[in-house]
Order: sequence, then structure tokens, then C-alpha cells
Amino acid sequence: MCAMSGELTINLGALLRNYKTLDALSAPERETACVVKADAYGLKVGKCAPVLYEAGARTFFVATTSEAIELRGVIPDDSNIYVLGGLGAGEGNLELDVRHNVIPVLNSLAEIKCAHKMSALRAAKQIERSTESTNDNLFASKKVPVALHFDTGMNRLGLGEDEANVLFQDPSILKGLNVRLVISHFASSEEADNPDNRAQLERFNAVKSRIAPLCPEARFSLANSGGFFLGEDYHFDMTRAGVALYGAHPTSSLSDNPMEPIISLNVPVLQVRTAKKGEGAGYNSTYRFEQDTDLAIVSIGYADGLPRSLSNEGVFYCRGYALPIRGRVSMDSVICDLGGVPKDQHPSLGDMVEVIGESQSLDALAKSAGTISYEILTSLGARYKRNYI
Amino acid sequence: MCAMSGELTINLGALLRNYKTLDALSAPERETACVVKADAYGLKVGKCAPVLYEAGARTFFVATTSEAIELRGVIPDDSNIYVLGGLGAGEGNLELDVRHNVIPVLNSLAEIKCAHKMSALRAAKQIERSTESTNDNLFASKKVPVALHFDTGMNRLGLGEDEANVLFQDPSILKGLNVRLVISHFASSEEADNPDNRAQLERFNAVKSRIAPLCPEARFSLANSGGFFLGEDYHFDMTRAGVALYGAHPTSSLSDNPMEPIISLNVPVLQVRTAKKGEGAGYNSTYRFEQDTDLAIVSIGYADGLPRSLSNEGVFYCRGYALPIRGRVSMDSVICDLGGVPKDQHPSLGDMVEVIGESQSLDALAKSAGTISYEILTSLGARYKRNYI
Repeated sequence: MCAMSGELTINLGALLRNYKTLDALSAPERETACVVKADAYGLKVGKCAPVLYEAGARTFFVATTSEAIELRGVIPDDSNIYVLGGLGAGEGNLELDVRHNVIPVLNSLAEIKCAHKMSALRAAKQIERSTESTNDNLFASKKVPVALHFDTGMNRLGLGEDEANVLFQDPSILKGLNVRLVISHFASSEEADNPDNRAQLERFNAVKSRIAPLCPEARFSLANSGGFFLGEDYHFDMTRAGVALYGAHPTSSLSDNPMEPIISLNVPVLQVRTAKKGEGAGYNSTYRFEQDTDLAIVSIGYADGLPRSLSNEGVFYCRGYALPIRGRVSMDSVICDLGGVPKDQHPSLGDMVEVIGESQSLDALAKSAGTISYEILTSLGARYKRNYI
Repeated sequence: MCAMSGELTINLGALLRNYKTLDALSAPERETACVVKADAYGLKVGKCAPVLYEAGARTFFVATTSEAIELRGVIPDDSNIYVLGGLGAGEGNLELDVRHNVIPVLNSLAEIKCAHKMSALRAAKQIERSTESTNDNLFASKKVPVALHFDTGMNRLGLGEDEANVLFQDPSILKGLNVRLVISHFASSEEADNPDNRAQLERFNAVKSRIAPLCPEARFSLANSGGFFLGEDYHFDMTRAGVALYGAHPTSSLSDNPMEPIISLNVPVLQVRTAKKGEGAGYNSTYRFEQDTDLAIVSIGYADGLPRSLSNEGVFYCRGYALPIRGRVSMDSVICDLGGVPKDQHPSLGDMVEVIGESQSLDALAKSAGTISYEILTSLGARYKRNYI
């Protein structure tokens, strides 16, 4: 009806096949989990997670408790949901986690102690009270399920070496907690030859040898999308499929992307015009035309998540011909150069121009913008008409 | 409850005052319109537009018909809504515009002809049919209200010189259309001394002298936020307040920003840790610590609209102390250096860190990211808790 804005097509069949492709890279007994944080990397968790469940996924990772609660509403209860951001600011999040059957990933001693304290408090309450709600019973009658995250080389989230040693020397703070999973995260796994990968693997194995005896039920997970391609030493009990699910090229070990693209983005032409030699394009005239030039003004801008860094850098496509972006990307529109398109194939008002699709991959667009496909995905705007096929 | 993610506070009182500040810059008989496209620059049109209406605004600009329909639902019917993107891809949009009492800005001869054709078709239908719905009557019984956009130096949207001359020589294609408003748009109005401003003014006056006799009801509008500060020659019948409403510094003619900031953004600390000398930070270790360094990992990332270009560039604040970003901005977290904060003032798990606020303006953050405040605003993510005060 309103074809004013772009059309974003998300191929859920390709998402399902990408899951199976990744799952086949590790031995059958290794579980393949899915990372669906940031609203499934911008593609809507309500659409993507059920498809991944259908494909066989039973473990999911999100960033925040809010995301976990949303996810719990769209996949069956027999699936596991882990919150990578841990307890975050609020102790109350642990209660929410338990109530919604989601599991926090504890990233520091401070978080472990917080969970430990909460667990003890709840157990004490359980004894005091005579009447209990089902949820309280659930909480207090068994240990609180958690995951632990050990940092092995990013200095981002996870227990560092010093904190890990404190824990190993006094494992009593794990009392009341059921450590279901122990993870770490790669800094550079897409670079297959980066020696940091091996170094992180060795550190994770060292952690495993210390924590496994303390947490007999714990499983172990290290590999993210790039890690699938590093070999079985890296797979442990569970791999975690992230950006590769959504079609980005996950590894330098293969020149061709083994993943299927799952999105395409096309935007309508708002106007076709001709600029005269010497005139400027867009805000602050950062581009000057060296000759009379036909232009298409298309309906996409940085308010749609198209990076402004594509100004004078990016390219769109029309019928296979490249349309270089001239001048600055505006909030709602972009000026494209039709100089390379034969006159009889120029687009008209309302014709669609390709931003991502057969002529330009997600990764290629990201590269032109000086960023990575992840940022393009998570920035995909709210004004597109979204078609899920 | 879930304090996991950041808190974005939007000061609607400051928005109202910014409107009044801008309105006072032009003579009382000049109308001050508001640009609320892209969901009020990311701040939610449903919250902002009613406040601007309350402040006295009666004319609003959006980018698309969909945005216009949403806006029409939140402000009274005595207000005017213009759609800058015009008819866009769909002829059907004109019908939608009429039905929802919104007015398309026609940017090209092609759009004018399309509107003309639709108007004639509807008039013919009116004669053929004996029974009409109220809306059809509304449409056909009077001319269709439109605005015209003339380009005066951006080569983006609007009739260029050649198209304008065609129109002036054959104004019959305006038959059936009631041209309510004629606009153009500045390319560099925030640069008060840029000679292009004067050149655009002169071109707009030339357009006015040709179109005014053809469209007796038309009013004229040229100034955007920067244009308010260029003097009364630039104000015409209507000024259009955009990014300045939302607190960005609109003009180089003043060293201090005359606008009140309307947003502040604070994010919680997920973890405090210490990196050892020689270790790296974040993905691909793009930063190396030259000494043992205390760090705060905070809950914000590019999935929240924080530009990844802030990697190793940006700064957050804690209790007035600067916290430089180390390594790459991740999807959901950022590594901050606590080296400049006295030990006894280090934040703890759950403490809030300032991204935008008293220590760092919206414009300053944008500058660190190599972009403009507009892109920061329109990228503000969905995971923040939004407080409107």
C-alpha cells in the first residue's frame, strides 16, 4: 500500500539451512546453540527463533533479561535461554530469570557472589514460610541454574585470571548454584590463522581442568561463528552460531562465503534528475559534478540505519549496474549517480534500487561503510516493509 | 525492574522551550513549523509532537506517508502535515494522503503530473458516480492540497531549474491542485558565513517571483534549523525547526549552543576488571594496554545505536571523570578505561556511566564518532528504558 519506503526481505528458509550447515560442521554429539541477541541481529527474534527451534536448536543466547523474556514467549519451554549480560545492574534480574526459566551467564566474582547471596536468601525464605507459590518453590527447592563466563583474552566480559584463581581456591561461593555451562569468547576467530585463537583455546582448556571437578554438571562452550571452522578441538560440548546464521562470511579459512544470504534490501526511487557540471551534491556539497550527470534520489537514509559513512563511498545497484553514492547520505534519502547506466535502462519514479541483494552482499556494503555486517544488521531500520519468506 | 540496559531520558519541557526559542527568532507573523520525521529524530513522535502542538506548532513535516498517518493519530486535526518524500513509489499514496488529511510535497514534474492525473481521475469518478462516500466527496469536490519543492542547490529532492522552467511555461499541469506551500532546503545553513546560503536565497526568490502569480494561495518556506539564524530575509512565511528542537547546535554564528539539551543517556556497568600490561582489549585486540589498567565494561553497544566508529575514539564519563573507550565497540558492550578515575571513585557493578549528559553533549559524542548529532539521535536503540520528563 505505502510503497514509499524500502522493502527488506528476510529468507527464513535460508536461515534454517544456515543453521543446518553450521550444525554439520561439528560432531553430532556437540550441540549447536544460536545467538539471537539484539532482536536476532535486527531481524526480529519473534520470526527467527521459532525457525531455529524448528531446525533443531534447543539452546539460545541473548544479551539482556528483557530479551530473554521476549524470547521465552516465542519458543517452547524445553529450550534453554542464556543471558550473556548476566545479572547486569539489578539483583532483581535473577528473580526474573528464574521466574521466566532463563539462565544468567555470570561474568565476574561480583555477579557470582550476588547470585550466591540471592540463592541463600531465597532458601532461607523457603524455610521461614509455610505457604509458597509454585515459582518460589521452584526457586528454592533446587539450586539456581547459572552459566559461568571466563575471559581468555578479550578483557571484555568474563572472569579474568585473578578472579578465576580466587574462585578455584574458594569454590564455596558456588554453593546454591547449579553451573550448567562454562563459556568463553573468541576475539578473532574469523581470522583462522590468528595465533590468538590457539592461545585462547589453551587458556580455556586450563580453566576447564580446574572448574570441571567443581561443577560436575557443567558443559563447555567456546566457539562462536568463526570457531566452527577452527576444527573439532574448538567445539567442546556446544558451539554458538551467531552472525553466520544471518549470512555473514564467518571465516578467512574459506574464500567463498559458505553461508546463504538471508536478507535483501531494495528501496524506491523518489526522483530522477540531472545535475549540471560544477554543481554540488547534498549537504555541504561534498561532491562536485565534473559533467552533467543524471541522478536517482532514493528513499533510504541514516534514519533507516544506512551508515552515514557511506557518503561518497557506497554503491547501490540497478539492473546490475552500479550507482555510486554522491555527496552525503541524508536522513531519509541518498543521491545516486546514473552515469554508468545506459539511458534506456534508467530507473523511473517508484522503481526499486538494490542496496543488498544479488549485486551487493551484506558484507560488501558493510565494507564500503568501514564497518562490519553485524552493525548493518542491527541497525536495519523500522521504516522498511519487512517480508519474511 | 530490568535495569540491565541504559536509561534514555527525554526532557519534553526542554523540547517545548526549544520550540519557543526558535519561534522567537522570527517575526510573529512567520509561522514556525516542526520537522518530526524519522519518529521525531528517534525520540518518538507520539511523545514529541503533542508537546510541540501544545507549544503552538500547527504545521509538521515528516518523510513518508506512513509517518504522516502515525502523526495524524497523535495531534489534532487543525494541524497541517506535509510529507517531504512526496508521493514516493505509489500513486496510491495520494489517496492515502487525502484520506488522512496530509499533504504531499511534490518534488518533481513526474510527481506533479502523477498528482494531476490522480486529481483528474477522481474528479471524473465523482461525476460518474451518483453515491459517494464522504471521503470521495472531500477529494473530488475541491482541489487536492499539495506543496511544491524547488531545488536551489542540493541536487537532492525538488524541481531543478530545467523542470521549474517547464512548469512556469506550462502551468496547466497544476490544474486540480491547490498549491498551499512552496519550499526549498538549505545545504549548508549551519555554516552562517557560507556564500551558498545567499545563493540559495536568491534562487528561491527567483522561483517565488515566478510561482507566486500562478499559485495565489501558496506560502513560502526556506529556513531549516540553521536558517533561523541567517536573518529575516531567510524566514519567508514559514520556518522549519528540525534538529535544533532536539538540542543540537544549529549555527556557526554562535559559539555557545542556544538550544537546551533534551536527552541524557546513562548505561550500567556490567563488570569491573583489571587488564594486565600487554594484554589486548576487545575484538581483534585493536588496543594494547601499556600498563595494568582498571576497566569498566558497560552495557551499550552498536546494537543500541552507539556508532562502532567510536572504537578507540570515544569517551564516556563517570562522576565527571573521562572514561576512554578501549578497543572495539561490541554489539552489546563497551570497554572503558578507569585509569583517570581515583580508585575510591571507581564505579561498581550496576553503577551508571554517562554517555550523553552534563559531561558530554550530544554534539560532542557525534563528533567523536565522526558523524553528526542527527545520526546519533535517529539511531537511538530500542533497548533503552525511556523516561519522558
